[in-house]
This record gives sequence, C-alpha cells and structure tokens, in this order.
Amino acid sequence: MANNNSNNQYAYKAKPATFYGAGVGPGDPLLLTLKTHQLIQSADVISYIGNTNGHSQAREIARHSIEARTSAAEEVMVKMPMSTNRRLANQAYDEAAMLLRQHLAAGKSVVFLCEGDPLFFGSFSYLLQRLGGDFACQVVPGITSVNAAAATLQQPLTLLQESFAVVSGRHTDQQIEQTLAQHDSVVIMKAGQARPRILALLRQTGRWQDGHYLEYIGRDQQRLVSDLDDLEDQAGPYFSLFVIVRQERPA
Amino acid sequence: MANNNSNNQYAYKAKPATFYGAGVGPGDPLLLTLKTHQLIQSADVISYIGNTNGHSQAREIARHSIEARTSAAEEVMVKMPMSTNRRLANQAYDEAAMLLRQHLAAGKSVVFLCEGDPLFFGSFSYLLQRLGGDFACQVVPGITSVNAAAATLQQPLTLLQESFAVVSGRHTDQQIEQTLAQHDSVVIMKAGQARPRILALLRQTGRWQDGHYLEYIGRDQQRLVSDLDDLEDQAGPYFSLFVIVRQERPA
Repeated sequence: MANNNSNNQYAYKAKPATFYGAGVGPGDPLLLTLKTHQLIQSADVISYIGNTNGHSQAREIARHSIEARTSAAEEVMVKMPMSTNRRLANQAYDEAAMLLRQHLAAGKSVVFLCEGDPLFFGSFSYLLQRLGGDFACQVVPGITSVNAAAATLQQPLTLLQESFAVVSGRHTDQQIEQTLAQHDSVVIMKAGQARPRILALLRQTGRWQDGHYLEYIGRDQQRLVSDLDDLEDQAGPYFSLFVIVRQERPA
Repeated sequence: MANNNSNNQYAYKAKPATFYGAGVGPGDPLLLTLKTHQLIQSADVISYIGNTNGHSQAREIARHSIEARTSAAEEVMVKMPMSTNRRLANQAYDEAAMLLRQHLAAGKSVVFLCEGDPLFFGSFSYLLQRLGGDFACQVVPGITSVNAAAATLQQPLTLLQESFAVVSGRHTDQQIEQTLAQHDSVVIMKAGQARPRILALLRQTGRWQDGHYLEYIGRDQQRLVSDLDDLEDQAGPYFSLFVIVRQERPA
C-alpha cells in the first residue's frame, strides 16, 4: 500500500486566466478540501471578503494553507460594509469584479475563498454573475455550516425517506411554520435577531423537543445547546443556527 | 509567508479507541477534506460499505489517500445487499458493528469512510446508533452531492432570502409538489426510477424552466443536462438528481 509518489497522481494546480470560487468550510482549517488547499498553493492571486476593519474570516480559516505556500501570493481583500443595503453591497462587488478582472485579463489565476460553500448563501455568486461570462470559471464546493452542525451534534440530518429544508431567520413566521410542519429535518440559519421568534414557532408547531441550537460552529467560541430549555429567550449572534430533527426516527 | 513547517501546526491524528465517521465527498478524490485525508493516514482500521461483488465506491474515492499511507491499514469492508429490505440492511449493520466493536475495544482507531457526508442520507448513522453509546465518536463532515451539483452547474443554490429543500424520488407526488411550490431552490435526490414522475411534477408546478439534471457527479461517466427538454422521459440511474433554482433571482 505504501506509495510515496501517489500524491502526485492527483496534484491540482490553478490554471492561468481562470477564476475559482473555493469553499473553505465553516471554521476548522482542516475542513478545507485537498482541492482548495492545492489551489491556494498554486494560485497567482488569492482574494476574499473582509470587513471594514480589515478582518477576513475566510482568510483566517485558510491561514495555515496560505502560510504553507513556498512563495507569497498576491492577495486582494474585498471590503464589504456590514449593512443590509444591497446598493452598498453591489457597489463593493462591482469594484471587486473590476479589480479581479484586471488580474484575469493579465492571465493570472485567481482563487476567491468563501466561508462554507461558494454557492450556498455565498458572496461568490455575485462575483460569478459579474465575471462568469468573460473568463473560465470553476467552483470548488466546501463544507457548509449545515453539515458541520450535524457532525458536531452527531445527529443524522436525513435518514431514508426523511425530507429536509433550510430556511433562515429572515423568513416570515408563516414560511418557517410551514417548513417545520412539512419537513422531518429543518435547519434555520442566521438565527441571531430572530431567536425569540424561532423559539415561539418551535413551541407552536410541537417541534420544541426536536430542536438543537449552535453558534460559531468550529470556532473557539463554539456553543452547543442540545436542550432548548437551556437556551435564553433573547437575540443571539448572527452566526447561529437551529437544527431540528425528529426524536423518533426510522431504523 | 513561506513556512514549510506550517503543516505540522494542524496535523491531525486518529485517537485510540475512537470511532470516526468521515465523509469522502461525492466522487472527486480531491474533494476529501484535509482532516479525512489525515485520518486515513493515521487510522489503525479503515472501514467502508461495499457491494456483494466486493466493490466499494467510498474506498474508490479515497484510494489515493489510502495509497499515500506509509504503512498498510487493516481494512474492513461491510458488505451491504442491494435491497430495500431494511431487515437485511440492519443485519449487515449489526454484523459490522460487532466486528468494529472488537477493534475499538482493543484500543484501535477506526475510520469509517462514507460517500458524501456521513449524516446526510448516510449509512454511518446506523453504525453510530450501534456504537455511539460505548465508544468515543467523532464525525468529520464531507461534501454532499447537493453542493457538488451546484458547483458543477455553477448555479447558486441559495441567495439571500431564498429557501431551500431536499426531497427524494421516494417521496409522494404531493410531497414533491408542495416542496416545489413553497421553496425557491429544491434538490430532488435519488431521481432514478422516479424520473418520469418528477418531470411531470416539474411541468405541473411551472418549474420546468428552473430544472437541471445531473447523474454520476464527479465521476468519469458524469452527465449534466441544463435544459430539461433534452432529457429522456424514462427511468435513469440511482445516482442522479434534479436541481431546481429560480431563473429570475435577487441581485
């Protein structure tokens, strides 16, 4: 079985003039895929979203992989204002696309790092809209916080004929209620401000006992609440979610 | 930035007497996570489901990582009859749990490889039920076929306030219809035998134009159909799915 050359059989290098959207997973640096790790090693340009203070969670997750490079990459941080104003966000994406476009037109490989998965509530979608028509693009999926949450809870997300849905704290009461009534397993993302509302809906729909709560999955400040009776009925952090799975499940 | 020692900062080794469920992703060997790759390097025992002919898709996906080991691992294939008879499946899980229990009781680390993610329609759930109470367990999430499908299609699975649901070809017409009506994005797994029924439901619910079809994602025989008019109205392979996303989407 020993074969020290085998890693070369599936080495993967970023191609020139190609735009990659690469998921870095939910927080644990070891949840990067081999592909994303290798793209980070070989890309000319590494880009990511950062906040207006210059902190990038995506870069932080990929830090070990970036530091493992034998030579420094050019890095491009896309500063994103913390606001629900879509005009400001779209302006930031426009500027980022213009900058990355120059690198791609010059024949460089560009890897855009995304928390979680690039196409699951991801900012990469907006850059793909702007650059996808003009350059070769590739998407490398990443571990979502949904799958990381199930792993942390050690609770099957779906078994056999169970159905599964994802909604967020931004959905209406009616949408969340219908989803809880119709699907065996439900994940409610971005629970933050909506936590009291979600707790009320879980009681109303009889799904209280099925609920689990997590925040900051895979980070140092991770918190897991298995019994919702132990969870404060008040707003919490943005990076939090509920996982609702049936107590009685098929064997 | 160059730091050749940095890989050691996050080396990860399988712990004694610990049972790991590790996702190997949908098919591309590079979509293993660094964590699963490192667990494979360091585990005493590597286990996986195989068919009655002795072929294991999970092992095949992880083959490069297994061959990269410096010494051979003990391997345990759990032979699973191709049948919808749950009694036969449960019997196979009982036998597998008994065998793996002996290794764990002897202090060995056991990594059970799972296609996709261990807790998303995964066989690992049934071994976790049987062994979870008696040994330390850890779950390492994997890339699901859902996220791999979106990456292959280069279509955002969810944007902003879109909701998302997963059903399968095993659900009733009514369940699939409701889901298509209520959620912006829908993935229908295990489309195989149900393909004609699913196509009819997509027409009825007005979601025909939103539909894409994929089979054998990330494997050599991968097939992608972006326009459902090009898809035969007949049963297809088990490893196939539909991705339904709105044509008009928020910016």
